[in-house]
Amino acid sequence: GLHHQYLTQEEAQNIDVDLMGPSCGFSDDQGAWAGGQLMELAGLSCATAIAKVFPTHRNPTIHYPKRTDKQLYRNLVKQCECMEIPFIDQLPDRLEDYDLIVDAIFGYSFKPHSGVRPPFDAVLKRLRETEVPIASLDIPSGWDVEKGDSAGVGVKEPHLLVSLTAPKLAARSFRKEHWLGGRFVPPSLEKKYELNLPPYPGTDVVVRLPPPSSL
Amino acid sequence: GLHHQYLTQEEAQNIDVDLMGPSCGFSDDQGAWAGGQLMELAGLSCATAIAKVFPTHRNPTIHYPKRTDKQLYRNLVKQCECMEIPFIDQLPDRLEDYDLIVDAIFGYSFKPHSGVRPPFDAVLKRLRETEVPIASLDIPSGWDVEKGDSAGVGVKEPHLLVSLTAPKLAARSFRKEHWLGGRFVPPSLEKKYELNLPPYPGTDVVVRLPPPSSL
Repeated sequence: GLHHQYLTQEEAQNIDVDLMGPSCGFSDDQGAWAGGQLMELAGLSCATAIAKVFPTHRNPTIHYPKRTDKQLYRNLVKQCECMEIPFIDQLPDRLEDYDLIVDAIFGYSFKPHSGVRPPFDAVLKRLRETEVPIASLDIPSGWDVEKGDSAGVGVKEPHLLVSLTAPKLAARSFRKEHWLGGRFVPPSLEKKYELNLPPYPGTDVVVRLPPPSSL
Repeated sequence: GLHHQYLTQEEAQNIDVDLMGPSCGFSDDQGAWAGGQLMELAGLSCATAIAKVFPTHRNPTIHYPKRTDKQLYRNLVKQCECMEIPFIDQLPDRLEDYDLIVDAIFGYSFKPHSGVRPPFDAVLKRLRETEVPIASLDIPSGWDVEKGDSAGVGVKEPHLLVSLTAPKLAARSFRKEHWLGGRFVPPSLEKKYELNLPPYPGTDVVVRLPPPSSL
């Protein structure tokens, strides 16, 4: 069967440091994160997996309550505006008017025992309560990257999880739709971290992962 | 049938200026070209079309005789090195040892009446003579973007042409494999330039264009 390694938080952080370091070309000559390319491929992977699992045509809306001042994020906001995708300042009263929620709040650096800061505490509470299907990117928001929703503050098991680079430890027991994206890991890093990634079929930027084998 | 507009050199340049300008998010707050994202999607489109038309697994080699000092290009070189793709300083004596040549020398800004400067004059001469299949990116090198190989210095009709953003005027009579990539044109620009682009199927980053209808 298909065997792929699940990353600890430290491994996931180390791979990212290597990818964004001076040897892989996703940084400038000073080794500073150059940003756009890896982000674009990761985003394309997520969008592709979502479109494959939920193929209905959609009119997306973005809730981005706390903006960062980094240039890369300002550019992404402009790209969305240019694509005429509306931003909303408040989560709508009726989430049921939407047929899919894409959860892209926290990544694998989140530590649930430190608590969830506003305004994300209220957002996560709404996501925990809704029946609307959820697609989580890389790690369901609020989860511990190794122990899952151990603090009970995170998104419940989403309908779709798109792991990036390699699945994280918390996804080991994930039984719903699980896809892998981020087809940018060079062979040297795959060897160094013993990732044992499944092959991406043809020219696809995502690959569907089989459910974990039962014991 | 499928109708798509063929761009003049001026239109192609204007669309690029708009894409890389302050409203589309592919530039920083000062409107300077931010680079990586558009380049990544364009490159992915080209690689995908090549892999679809020539599906054999390959060991690529890169001839990059005149390096530029721009950070984006230095990063791309590092990415290739990280992927263990070898660079060669000289075109090999026997091009027939290769089963495909990817032609990515000149773009649509090339004006053939100004002549071809070294070392590209010798490279183009070799490409004009070889029987090895050629895949050209955006415009066959040495062609006038509107009149084709009018100066007789360019790559002859390649086996595959991957047009980016929209096909250029010189591709109007192209009868071999013609694909379109660069699925990043926002609706406002598609309208402004009356591009009439064909729909990209599903989540594909490329679409095959039909041969021009005979008169």
